[in-house]
Amino acid sequence: MPESSHVDLCLIGSGSANSIPDDRFDDWSIALVEGGTFGGTCLNVGCIPTKMYVHPADLARTPEHAGPLGVDLTLDRVRWADVRDRVFGRIDPISAAGERYRAESRNIRLFRQQARFVGDARLRLDDGTEITADRFVIAAGSRVRIASADGLADTPYETSDTVMRLPELPRSMIIVGGGYVAAEFAHVFSAYGTEVTLVARGKALLRQEDAEISSRFTEAMGRRVDLRLQHTLRATRRAERGVEVDVDGPDGPATLTADVLLLATGRIPNGDRLDLDRTGVTLDDDGYVVVDEHQQTGHPGIFALGDVSSHHQLKHVANHEARVVQHNLLHPDAMIASDHRYVPHAVFSSPQVASVGLTEEQAFEQGIGYVVGQTAYASTAYGWALGETGEHVVKLLADPATGLLLGAHLIGPDASSLIQPLIQAMSFGQAAPDVARGQYWIHPAMAEVVENALLALPLDGRSAE
Amino acid sequence: MPESSHVDLCLIGSGSANSIPDDRFDDWSIALVEGGTFGGTCLNVGCIPTKMYVHPADLARTPEHAGPLGVDLTLDRVRWADVRDRVFGRIDPISAAGERYRAESRNIRLFRQQARFVGDARLRLDDGTEITADRFVIAAGSRVRIASADGLADTPYETSDTVMRLPELPRSMIIVGGGYVAAEFAHVFSAYGTEVTLVARGKALLRQEDAEISSRFTEAMGRRVDLRLQHTLRATRRAERGVEVDVDGPDGPATLTADVLLLATGRIPNGDRLDLDRTGVTLDDDGYVVVDEHQQTGHPGIFALGDVSSHHQLKHVANHEARVVQHNLLHPDAMIASDHRYVPHAVFSSPQVASVGLTEEQAFEQGIGYVVGQTAYASTAYGWALGETGEHVVKLLADPATGLLLGAHLIGPDASSLIQPLIQAMSFGQAAPDVARGQYWIHPAMAEVVENALLALPLDGRSAE
Repeated sequence: MPESSHVDLCLIGSGSANSIPDDRFDDWSIALVEGGTFGGTCLNVGCIPTKMYVHPADLARTPEHAGPLGVDLTLDRVRWADVRDRVFGRIDPISAAGERYRAESRNIRLFRQQARFVGDARLRLDDGTEITADRFVIAAGSRVRIASADGLADTPYETSDTVMRLPELPRSMIIVGGGYVAAEFAHVFSAYGTEVTLVARGKALLRQEDAEISSRFTEAMGRRVDLRLQHTLRATRRAERGVEVDVDGPDGPATLTADVLLLATGRIPNGDRLDLDRTGVTLDDDGYVVVDEHQQTGHPGIFALGDVSSHHQLKHVANHEARVVQHNLLHPDAMIASDHRYVPHAVFSSPQVASVGLTEEQAFEQGIGYVVGQTAYASTAYGWALGETGEHVVKLLADPATGLLLGAHLIGPDASSLIQPLIQAMSFGQAAPDVARGQYWIHPAMAEVVENALLALPLDGRSAE
Repeated sequence: MPESSHVDLCLIGSGSANSIPDDRFDDWSIALVEGGTFGGTCLNVGCIPTKMYVHPADLARTPEHAGPLGVDLTLDRVRWADVRDRVFGRIDPISAAGERYRAESRNIRLFRQQARFVGDARLRLDDGTEITADRFVIAAGSRVRIASADGLADTPYETSDTVMRLPELPRSMIIVGGGYVAAEFAHVFSAYGTEVTLVARGKALLRQEDAEISSRFTEAMGRRVDLRLQHTLRATRRAERGVEVDVDGPDGPATLTADVLLLATGRIPNGDRLDLDRTGVTLDDDGYVVVDEHQQTGHPGIFALGDVSSHHQLKHVANHEARVVQHNLLHPDAMIASDHRYVPHAVFSSPQVASVGLTEEQAFEQGIGYVVGQTAYASTAYGWALGETGEHVVKLLADPATGLLLGAHLIGPDASSLIQPLIQAMSFGQAAPDVARGQYWIHPAMAEVVENALLALPLDGRSAE
């Protein structure tokens, strides 16, 4: 007869939720349910390993950047197996150690199974074990969305879950997708020496970005890969070597061949696999768990966080939400709200992209008044050092009445770090002229491009100095 | 008989002061006096060209960084002449165009001569021309300090003014100095392939930095060059090929030989060359023009800014002071003060160093209570991508009572950009816990090392979340 147990707290998912139980929870009985790899998407197949592939890709491209600056470098080879083994030799033990730590916890019981709700605050594991809990945290994450195409079931393909563990570097690869996952892997594999064909439905890559950024990124990537925009996937099949893919594009149908097919067509939240309706938790039209500002679902005591409930699908958002849920579990009478006002993101491709706040298109559509300030890296002293030619920019939107930033969009080197003072300004309500002139910007650091973009905003009321 | 003229404003120096006359000065008669290269130190021999040499040096060192990450790169060669010609092919025309622009200005007269004061608000140029003015701006900059050594007058040597224009890359070089100029050129030349011997008086390099940073930097540089600490220069002479240099060190005297001798032993302000006592302007014990908070000297209407009056000797400080002087010239009845509270600086060597505020030693000496938070790049996700091994850190000092930052000291990749949110926090009085948790930090961007250092500060009163 299946076991049944009651705990104070049941955590579903070992990613961000795993950071919740600290010493303040030592007298709580806790169940931690994880059916997949321990540690979640970010650690195992997401942010962290991808960046460990991206940096070597940046290095592999150094020769083409260095040549015009007078430095002759030759890329001899990228040792795929060594890259891969460095990444997973580092990550897999972290996952294993995290699992071991929890398995040995006195007050935490780890269940390595999938689970579904079978009643009100009642969860059933695959082996039949039932868990009831005073509180649940649903942090079951998201999974790769698989594109549909005739014959796909019989075609070998990779996703971001698997492609980083390939036994060897493919000579050629078809990547399907136009978002950040496709953009990062197109950079990685093309830099490593794989011939990449990138198939995207849209007229541009990274279409969620400000159109200026999306356009500049698309142009840059188009110089590096065989870029097929406005192409849809029709059919796939196994070929003698690798795969064949039928696509339809503006110029009619075409058949592409490659060693490897990588599907990078987005991620979907895992809430649909939990039978959440049995416990009174609802999903929105896109399949995300609906939560209030305290990260609480419609069912009191059931919280959700991270990819399963956040359209952002970003680890830094999940971490923030985990801290909010942690607080709210400990202080049910003094809950705090999560802050989703200024959520930045970055695309670690080449060029790098980082963004926070409204795009120009969003501001326009929402009828929000704005002014634009834009500066090219090339116009700064450090840009001269880098040999910048004008492709990389910082674009800012501000409210002309208050000078407060509405959005910041960067494409170029170190975008993901350079954006931080702008996130800080938005989060703390600092007006653009004050941010520009109320602090020193080291000359000639790369950050001057941000200072100059702030000064390029056509705002009145610049501070006296 | 020498000409004599009276103007509304006389600017001495064409560096930062040259940014003062904008359209608001169109009805002022202005004299601009410059005896050296037009455009000042930063543009011609300082910040800008040096960084244009540093970036290729960073690129030249990519192979040793990339190898352990699985990317095999070979440095074939650094084309010295191409590096040099790219730099000065870019900079020299800017200097020339700047000069032409001013020479053609309707209301500005450019005097290409050295000048000295000969009386109250009365300047005499080398050709005897005398200029009197209602207002002066002394922005005559600084010059290279030449170390003293027997025989130096008869020995060929380079300084930062000349070394970037060498006809060819030297096979070997002795650099004398332990500050930022020596540190940057030691990086540049050793990366380009020159055998560098670095002779420094102190027990460490970059001794003005926090001792932790200085020590880490010294260790890193010691692996790249023949580092002679606690060595003093005794004598120099021309050798059959290049130079011979006698030094005295802890183990006694030694004679070093190299193709080129580079003296990088600091800079001194040019106020001593202006006979400022004739016009009632005083110098401090270190030779800097004494100014008040409005950048005004003891003589009303005579302002000074930049290296000639600022111990910082930093271009971003000079720029700030130029804006202050500009305002104060235009609004003599509503002068503003310059802000020297949180002046950051960076050393663009390898590793890069950036700093703002108090070092731990300064805080200790001044009896200021502080706590320390320190985080290694290696402990962050991006640090894993970079293959960091623990040498590079962010070290923060904060006031335990208020949580306000007292100092920030970074050594590692992109230090000069990563420091910006910390400068911002200090300049706007934002407490460390708020800066850490009151905004999102993109995961896994390099900036997370800053977030983590903020969180590593042992401060109570962390915000609720």
